[in-house]
Amino acid sequence: MPLFERVTIIGVGLIGGSLGMALRGRALAGEVVGVTRVPETIAAARARGAIDRGTVDPVEGVDGADLVVLATPPDLVVPMARRALPHLRAGALVTDVASVKAEIVRAIEALLRPGSRVAFLGGHPMAGNEGRGIAAAAASLFEGAVYLLTPTPRTPADACERLTGLARALGARPVAMDPEAHDRAVAVVSHLPYLVAAALVGICGSAGNAAGPAFLGATRVAGSPVEMWAQICRLNREPIQGALRAFREELARLEAALADGDGFDALLERARRARLRLRERSQPAGRPARGAREDG
Amino acid sequence: MPLFERVTIIGVGLIGGSLGMALRGRALAGEVVGVTRVPETIAAARARGAIDRGTVDPVEGVDGADLVVLATPPDLVVPMARRALPHLRAGALVTDVASVKAEIVRAIEALLRPGSRVAFLGGHPMAGNEGRGIAAAAASLFEGAVYLLTPTPRTPADACERLTGLARALGARPVAMDPEAHDRAVAVVSHLPYLVAAALVGICGSAGNAAGPAFLGATRVAGSPVEMWAQICRLNREPIQGALRAFREELARLEAALADGDGFDALLERARRARLRLRERSQPAGRPARGAREDG
Repeated sequence: MPLFERVTIIGVGLIGGSLGMALRGRALAGEVVGVTRVPETIAAARARGAIDRGTVDPVEGVDGADLVVLATPPDLVVPMARRALPHLRAGALVTDVASVKAEIVRAIEALLRPGSRVAFLGGHPMAGNEGRGIAAAAASLFEGAVYLLTPTPRTPADACERLTGLARALGARPVAMDPEAHDRAVAVVSHLPYLVAAALVGICGSAGNAAGPAFLGATRVAGSPVEMWAQICRLNREPIQGALRAFREELARLEAALADGDGFDALLERARRARLRLRERSQPAGRPARGAREDG
Repeated sequence: MPLFERVTIIGVGLIGGSLGMALRGRALAGEVVGVTRVPETIAAARARGAIDRGTVDPVEGVDGADLVVLATPPDLVVPMARRALPHLRAGALVTDVASVKAEIVRAIEALLRPGSRVAFLGGHPMAGNEGRGIAAAAASLFEGAVYLLTPTPRTPADACERLTGLARALGARPVAMDPEAHDRAVAVVSHLPYLVAAALVGICGSAGNAAGPAFLGATRVAGSPVEMWAQICRLNREPIQGALRAFREELARLEAALADGDGFDALLERARRARLRLRERSQPAGRPARGAREDG
């Protein structure tokens, strides 16, 4: 039995398209409706098996949906919610997939009319690839991925249950945290590493001739579309500045220890243990570790 | 026809063992002799197909060898060269695989007696994995990897040709640079990223709950053995300090641009282009790119 009768995905790009493919492939939705900005995307999304039908009209698209997923670029999530919310049926659940949460969650909760019986719960699947758009979508994108959910005191308990169930059904690992904690956490584990990768390639110059798979792996994310990342960084500026400060201090500690030889190995050993704990926590049993190269 | 009649590998661990497996698997050596510190490693290396025979005596091990590979931990390379060099036959070629070159190359060249007709050329295959020792060795370790060679004005031309040919025969991509340029380059593309990864996991704390594959990938190297990395960092301290300075300045530029909104996208776009150039240069045609996730 499908988890939802009709799921409307607004923005059928990499994440929205992958979600549609996964929902349809796993029979989790009776029907998947796609809302796109350009009409051509409808045919492409249908061809990829991401949607059953599509429209460029969000109002028409959300009609009768019991789940609406806002999967537009981050800066369009709130405007699209504003457009769609008045047309949702009672009992409908709304979520988004944006990488930044506090501001978006606050804005959308402010749009919810008391008594409308429409619920919102912010979401952020930690999945993606180097591509963009429906062409890069993949039904397997969420398998093994962390799926962050950001409830607030206003979130109904059954909204949490339904989206937790959906994340699990997609093969993802749901993790709940409040929107502010989310933004601080992704500043550290996603946005900071992006800026660090950009800085690493920014200084490599002719040293790039010596670059092996480890450097390519460490800097891979710096090759992804700037538009999306710049927008994310601006939306999450303050938590990112906090993460940069902590990172700078930690790197300075390592540098000082290297210079005077004191405690250098102990700092590295602490990092090694932290990395091993991370790995145990993040890799579900049976999920193959990717081949790794270290030196190079 | 094998490239070498008898290759002696001193130190049959991850790199030395992999080299032996590749030499034997590709029939590049008439015979591979292993020199180990502990006798038990001889049987293990033979069982893995890394050597034809082994000994714990370096003097006995190098007897009659036309190629000697010093594959010990970096701090033992020069002592082992001092021990072995007087016993090499005329025409023998010596190389090493250490991650740091200037000091080692200088020291070994100082050991070469004029007229001994023994040549030395420093090498550094940019390959490895998260394991250690002969158990982690793999015949395919060098395939597609950059193999750095560090000639000096004292290096005979035919030593360069022979080791370049060996690197190619292993499926690696030989790249020559002088020892000081090597140390500056690996400080940027290998040692700095290691310290950066250690700093990233060092500050992640509970944010690690949100860590996806991108964070695990960006910090993977921080999980590798501290002993080896601490030694490498100490040996290459000054180039690493230079790389840290350049990195800090670049990150500060990004941070300032994010704060005042000026030129942020342009800096990220410059990094993106640099990353794409790196990729084109480093991935030989036909070598499959690893699956990549960005956000998360």
